[in-house]
Amino acid sequence: MDKGILENLYHVAIAVNNLSAVEEVYTTALGLRVEHREVVEDQKVKTSMLVPKDGGTAIELLEPTSEDSPISKFLEKRGEGIHHICYKVDDIESVLAKLKEQGVRLIDETPRLGAYNSRVAFIHPKAMNGVLVELAELKKD
Amino acid sequence: MDKGILENLYHVAIAVNNLSAVEEVYTTALGLRVEHREVVEDQKVKTSMLVPKDGGTAIELLEPTSEDSPISKFLEKRGEGIHHICYKVDDIESVLAKLKEQGVRLIDETPRLGAYNSRVAFIHPKAMNGVLVELAELKKD
Repeated sequence: MDKGILENLYHVAIAVNNLSAVEEVYTTALGLRVEHREVVEDQKVKTSMLVPKDGGTAIELLEPTSEDSPISKFLEKRGEGIHHICYKVDDIESVLAKLKEQGVRLIDETPRLGAYNSRVAFIHPKAMNGVLVELAELKKD
Repeated sequence: MDKGILENLYHVAIAVNNLSAVEEVYTTALGLRVEHREVVEDQKVKTSMLVPKDGGTAIELLEPTSEDSPISKFLEKRGEGIHHICYKVDDIESVLAKLKEQGVRLIDETPRLGAYNSRVAFIHPKAMNGVLVELAELKKD
């Protein structure tokens, strides 16, 4: 099996000012359920994963925990809205190696720690027509 | 079964200037494959659905076919980037009825024709913290 490929879309991340308030809106209006909450120190955010009733691609709410969080800057500049999308990958090193080989501009040349002990890396939005794409290798138990 | 609920995330739509060029980037760099192309007259766009190798939630590229397309306006104002997300629903009338009952602000009170003969409706981004959410009931054969 080729380990250097993308699997399913894992989540769509939304920058928000008040995570609990938006959880309330999305669970009530859209019937999504909160699957997981976590503080990701490295990115200075509180996160909440919202999934449809039967599971599937999540919405990840991101609320900054500090004024120097990248999400604070995004909110100041753009207001609440979609921040990035994230694909699950089986082997993040292989995917990054392939992207580098193709000359695709990366924000992270090497993986760093994401939510749920995943290893993550971001592709530069200039390489992806304005879309910030995250790659996440989930922890294998 | 409750028909008034959301199923999986169907696609993430990206507004682009040149659909073929972006198809090339996304298929080459991310290994996605083109599953379907269609012109949606009602929304004055050319669309292309890109999915991971084994299927799953798609990226839908949207290129305007006319200057008065809503996508032309988006591109002028914001440049290329994520335009909306779309959830599959089993019964769009039930979902819209539920949303109206809750006082959720809608762009479309009644469904209109989308790609692949689906019936679609948009929730107002002001009701969804800056995120434009589409609901799509796919044609049942």
